[in-house]
Amino acid sequence: MDVYSSRIQVKSERRVEVKDVTEEVQVKLGESGIEDGVLFIFSLHTTNTLILNEGEPGLMRDVERWVEEAFARPDYRHDRIDRNAAAHIAASVAGNSLVLPVEGGKLALGTWQRVLHLELDGPRTRTLLVKVIGRKKENK
Amino acid sequence: MDVYSSRIQVKSERRVEVKDVTEEVQVKLGESGIEDGVLFIFSLHTTNTLILNEGEPGLMRDVERWVEEAFARPDYRHDRIDRNAAAHIAASVAGNSLVLPVEGGKLALGTWQRVLHLELDGPRTRTLLVKVIGRKKENK
Amino acid sequence: MDVYSSRIQVKSERRVEVKDVTEEVQVKLGESGIEDGVLFIFSLHTTNTLILNEGEPGLMRDVERWVEEAFARPDYRHDRIDRNAAAHIAASVAGNSLVLPVEGGKLALGTWQRVLHLELDGPRTRTLLVKVIGRKKENK
Repeated sequence: MDVYSSRIQVKSERRVEVKDVTEEVQVKLGESGIEDGVLFIFSLHTTNTLILNEGEPGLMRDVERWVEEAFARPDYRHDRIDRNAAAHIAASVAGNSLVLPVEGGKLALGTWQRVLHLELDGPRTRTLLVKVIGRKKENK
Repeated sequence: MDVYSSRIQVKSERRVEVKDVTEEVQVKLGESGIEDGVLFIFSLHTTNTLILNEGEPGLMRDVERWVEEAFARPDYRHDRIDRNAAAHIAASVAGNSLVLPVEGGKLALGTWQRVLHLELDGPRTRTLLVKVIGRKKENK
Repeated sequence: MDVYSSRIQVKSERRVEVKDVTEEVQVKLGESGIEDGVLFIFSLHTTNTLILNEGEPGLMRDVERWVEEAFARPDYRHDRIDRNAAAHIAASVAGNSLVLPVEGGKLALGTWQRVLHLELDGPRTRTLLVKVIGRKKENK
């Protein structure tokens, strides 16, 4: 059993933005050499999150709009300090991490599952920490 | 330390449906032989999710109704392709996985905690991937 | 690779209450001796949850108010048995566990990230189960 760690940078162009990072995560998994186990992606911030869902562009826009509407309130206390309380609350509810299965050295994802970074207070550059726990290929 | 993997099928009868799958998960854990560690349940789909909560039938209906109301919108873009954007967004927010503690070869759950599959776009048959990472019983 | 387990008690004074438990979790991680891996915090209850976000007091009150409003409904079935259906549903959506990275024997958190317990049906005393999976410091 082994632990592997690496980091990914994600850059957003808009305030609320869904971006597909599946390939970047798969590259890190390949570097780990782990064949069977679990991969964790952690946000190191408080106003972004990670989701696993379909990467259809219309749906990505729907997610952005739902999040903007569901968490908007006119009178958050935190908005007096920094106008991003809604982003903090959305990130709290959706969670700081994504947990994914690894089989045969690949992410064991369903047909439509893509790893999506959800920026809630961009544009910014974010750091994601990737950790993989599992078994490397046995030596023959 | 060891990794164990298995799959569970879950069948729904309605579009939005909470179903208790605790026993099926416990059986897989028993097969793993792992005594102390963490069990992961992953959905391989984008319009269902897993939650850990009480299995009281009235509450299960309340969860279904809350989800149907909280994510409904008349004008999702993805609905022009496939009329299930609300299901995708609910699944994104609630998450693709459930993480559970294992102690003494059993799920270490509180008195009222049950593993619940939440179908958001049924009726369908779904595949759940179960992985367990941990320590097997030591040989005496 | 090793597995470590411990428990934390959290006491709330109000019905809905965010409380910072980062230090208690860090102490348990120190006791584990694990240097590199993943730390899991599990609720053993069905009407509380854990989030990772900023510990700014105004924001903690905003989270409490958002949760109270977003899940309130006048006619939950479960409320005929026990008047806390909204708390169960909020806990289901936010999740039963928090997953955190461990590096150099410390929680690898971003500048603003704090481990927050969110009580949804207090005042109560809650038990949290902490598990750490990873590698201990190598002997020199």
